[in-house]
Amino acid sequence: MGFPRQVRLVEMSPRDGLQNEPGPVIATAIKTGLIDRLADCGLRHIESASFVSPKWVPQMGDAAEVMAGINRQAGVRYSVLTPNLRGFEGAQAAGVDEVAVFAAASESFSQKNINCSIAESLERFLPVMEAAGKHRIPVRGYVSTVMGCPYEGDIDPQQVATVAKALYDMGCHEISLGDTIGVGTPLKAKRMLEAVAAHVPMANLAAHFHDTYGQALANLYAVLEEGVAVIDASVAGLGGCPYAKGASGNVATEDVLYLLNGLGIETGVDLDQLVATGHWICGQLNRHNGSKVGQALGGNC
Amino acid sequence: MGFPRQVRLVEMSPRDGLQNEPGPVIATAIKTGLIDRLADCGLRHIESASFVSPKWVPQMGDAAEVMAGINRQAGVRYSVLTPNLRGFEGAQAAGVDEVAVFAAASESFSQKNINCSIAESLERFLPVMEAAGKHRIPVRGYVSTVMGCPYEGDIDPQQVATVAKALYDMGCHEISLGDTIGVGTPLKAKRMLEAVAAHVPMANLAAHFHDTYGQALANLYAVLEEGVAVIDASVAGLGGCPYAKGASGNVATEDVLYLLNGLGIETGVDLDQLVATGHWICGQLNRHNGSKVGQALGGNC
Repeated sequence: MGFPRQVRLVEMSPRDGLQNEPGPVIATAIKTGLIDRLADCGLRHIESASFVSPKWVPQMGDAAEVMAGINRQAGVRYSVLTPNLRGFEGAQAAGVDEVAVFAAASESFSQKNINCSIAESLERFLPVMEAAGKHRIPVRGYVSTVMGCPYEGDIDPQQVATVAKALYDMGCHEISLGDTIGVGTPLKAKRMLEAVAAHVPMANLAAHFHDTYGQALANLYAVLEEGVAVIDASVAGLGGCPYAKGASGNVATEDVLYLLNGLGIETGVDLDQLVATGHWICGQLNRHNGSKVGQALGGNC
Repeated sequence: MGFPRQVRLVEMSPRDGLQNEPGPVIATAIKTGLIDRLADCGLRHIESASFVSPKWVPQMGDAAEVMAGINRQAGVRYSVLTPNLRGFEGAQAAGVDEVAVFAAASESFSQKNINCSIAESLERFLPVMEAAGKHRIPVRGYVSTVMGCPYEGDIDPQQVATVAKALYDMGCHEISLGDTIGVGTPLKAKRMLEAVAAHVPMANLAAHFHDTYGQALANLYAVLEEGVAVIDASVAGLGGCPYAKGASGNVATEDVLYLLNGLGIETGVDLDQLVATGHWICGQLNRHNGSKVGQALGGNC
């Protein structure tokens, strides 16, 4: 298909980046400060919180306060994760622009991660989809473990396609394909994408790759060649899956942006400001900056 | 051209990896231990030392002892850097299998790095080429700053092609194209490679990419698509250019091997053993393991 002219970067750090952060719960002001800075960088889609029980994810317990505290900018889509109807109701009351639901391509991962089968998880989303439809709030669908599972190993691309199609058919406007444990390589990414794209239009697909084995940018380059035009990433590489060995989580937004700039693909995001934001949040969290571009362009890392 | 079926990995860590290591001079036994372990992993081409004045590069002062101390394995090419005739004579006396010379694509980088113009550096290699020809020792040619220079910024691909062709015409059997400061991106890498391949056969080209901005694997994937079949890398990402900002140096061999394995490209190198070797040398040097694959697959990093 050839490279897209523009890519929408979906910034994951406030949710996927912070949700597993160890230590005390991060102050709401730091979260809203991060989100506002990300919007100032030019990011137009920011996953800002998760409306989930604080028993499960203590770092996301202040989701409503976060949504109330940010300085909403026109043209920015503030989305949140809503695993169930209760979460959706909280999100809707907080005035979010988009919600998201989360399924796995691996049966074992689904069982261990959310305590139900893939089919059961899809059923649980139905009331969310219905309520979202009523309020005309778009729903994003995540599919995890699309290139491998910590329990099952390889995942059949057809299985990924089946789950992605189920989410799309159920009304999700965009399906984000997650290499949760970062085990993919470029041709595997292409084969997986091709299987999904046979059932869901390319324009409705996003790549959500973790960098656990250092392959994320090569995999992104490979799916950009296929025409993917939406990429999930996290500033300073914040985040990580507790089920994956090794420290790395989300691919760093700075590194993705450097790649896209080099390919002449427009994003509307300012690299220097993004690098500064990455250093700012790492300073707030006293955390290593996981972006190579961030490291190369200086700051306290 | 399509992917090569096999790739020869040229292991850089004993030379490019260790030459700028700060602190006291590393014991010869550690260097030979590293080289022997690398050969045990299945690597068939190991740049083992640099025959250069210890005044310039103290870490390489024991090049002759290193060459004498390794357990030579049949089928392994032990190469060394020889910037001048005196270096060549030491290397030849030490019984090396290959020597290498080093030129820049950037005039400013040549002046600041080796105190002479590009043309002068090429002239200085003539006696080395002549002596190597007499002893039938193959010569590898490096071209640095092929995708950008810390002083000049962008480098014209035609300028890279001119220097690469000069080295090839002078008798170098292989030209290694170095993104010394790691600023390249995939399409830039392809354009640079295409310019060079118009003058030097693809089979005689190698990719030597640093990972300063996290782009090395994406760039390698892009040049593999063009048919490059020789890749330079350094276990645990050892090394780094003192002229580049940021900590990163050579792309990690483990990460490159993971990519190649995923693409179904043969190398003859064992990943687990290579990961263990990366952790071993990092333990010896009390150094962070710069390989994401190394980090993901455990060990003391």
